[in-house]
Amino acid sequence: MTIAYDGGGYKGWQRLTNEPGTIQGTIERMLSEIEGSPVKISGSGRTDAGVHAKGQVAHVFLKTNEDPELLRQELNRMLPEDIRICRVESVSQSFHSRYSAVSKVYEYRIDQRSRADVFTRKYCYHRPVHLDLDRMRQAADHLTGTHDFGSFTDNKEADSVRTIFSIDIKKENEKLVLAFCGDGFLYHMVRILAGTLLEVGEGIRTPESVLEAFHHRDRSLTGFLAPAHGLCLREVNYK
Amino acid sequence: MTIAYDGGGYKGWQRLTNEPGTIQGTIERMLSEIEGSPVKISGSGRTDAGVHAKGQVAHVFLKTNEDPELLRQELNRMLPEDIRICRVESVSQSFHSRYSAVSKVYEYRIDQRSRADVFTRKYCYHRPVHLDLDRMRQAADHLTGTHDFGSFTDNKEADSVRTIFSIDIKKENEKLVLAFCGDGFLYHMVRILAGTLLEVGEGIRTPESVLEAFHHRDRSLTGFLAPAHGLCLREVNYK
Repeated sequence: MTIAYDGGGYKGWQRLTNEPGTIQGTIERMLSEIEGSPVKISGSGRTDAGVHAKGQVAHVFLKTNEDPELLRQELNRMLPEDIRICRVESVSQSFHSRYSAVSKVYEYRIDQRSRADVFTRKYCYHRPVHLDLDRMRQAADHLTGTHDFGSFTDNKEADSVRTIFSIDIKKENEKLVLAFCGDGFLYHMVRILAGTLLEVGEGIRTPESVLEAFHHRDRSLTGFLAPAHGLCLREVNYK
Repeated sequence: MTIAYDGGGYKGWQRLTNEPGTIQGTIERMLSEIEGSPVKISGSGRTDAGVHAKGQVAHVFLKTNEDPELLRQELNRMLPEDIRICRVESVSQSFHSRYSAVSKVYEYRIDQRSRADVFTRKYCYHRPVHLDLDRMRQAADHLTGTHDFGSFTDNKEADSVRTIFSIDIKKENEKLVLAFCGDGFLYHMVRILAGTLLEVGEGIRTPESVLEAFHHRDRSLTGFLAPAHGLCLREVNYK
């Protein structure tokens, strides 16, 4: 399943025991109703509370052999309007939404104008400052590649080596969009990358400061945690 | 003042006696605080409950001689995030937001996809049907010009002759956008025009049926009232 959601009203992707208000939990409840027995789905990764998605991917094992397109329509009729199933496909047993993924693209949107656009205010981080895009692109070049991103997470993880394939910085409809493509991201990593790039753009830190952060695993060497509502999981790519 | 607002949380533009929740009333409250005495503003026209604006215009007489740009910033700091003052300009005493206007442009947005886009669902009318754009453009040609639009309003008005300068029908970011430019619009007129064009596009009525509607003042000859949340006042033009 490929899923789009407005994360504004949710406590994030991951189901919480005995707590409503998660995206995974909401979809599972509908699927369980269709199946007539409890169903669990497995997402390509968690998104934090408030984070959006245009192309989250999840897999599920179902007993019923319903036509994928009919299942999609049935689910969309049941789901609230801030969650939509974009596509349902049959896959082989070996497919895994997380382990089969080869890359993911996250977008971080910034509204730099003095007044926030009233129509996109829930999907853009409003930061009315001047940003030096050249400096940000220099830092983005340093960040691209395979590195230990232990300074770019709020969770201690044994293996914090990840590969960023590209960081694209561009203007789109008067918003600044930072697009991060990588093989996987640590907890809070994209939001810390966005916060770090913003601080570089504002002149608070140098583009080279990120190189030093790679040599330690020290959260204090990286930028602020950019707010959740500016972030969107755009796509998950498979072979 | 040029004003943008997300009308979703409001009872429309016009101030209601002893009732909060209008856009005019909200801006007047802030301006009165700045002035230190009650201030009334005058808009180019009312927008219904739930209708949005990117470029509503209002004028106001103020005693204070504050710099327009500082006034704009002060207002924006005080206003809720779904109302934004885009521009404040000094004008001559003879300027009137409504009577000096030479044309207005309203946009009506339709999301035709089977599943509504989760990110624009509050600004587009979701109608997952096939539309024949050629037929709609034929009807739009008939509607353009100076006519008695008495069948295209939910209010009996003595003078229901208006001029529509153009109706532009185009696809934009996978949405269908109907842009109506005219010298003025009657109560519910744009939403009835949108509903009528949709019925033409769906084959429920012919493009020529609108010509018959001009010869009577009969609401039953025109289409359904398209929902408020698809409508946006894009701009008001002055000489």
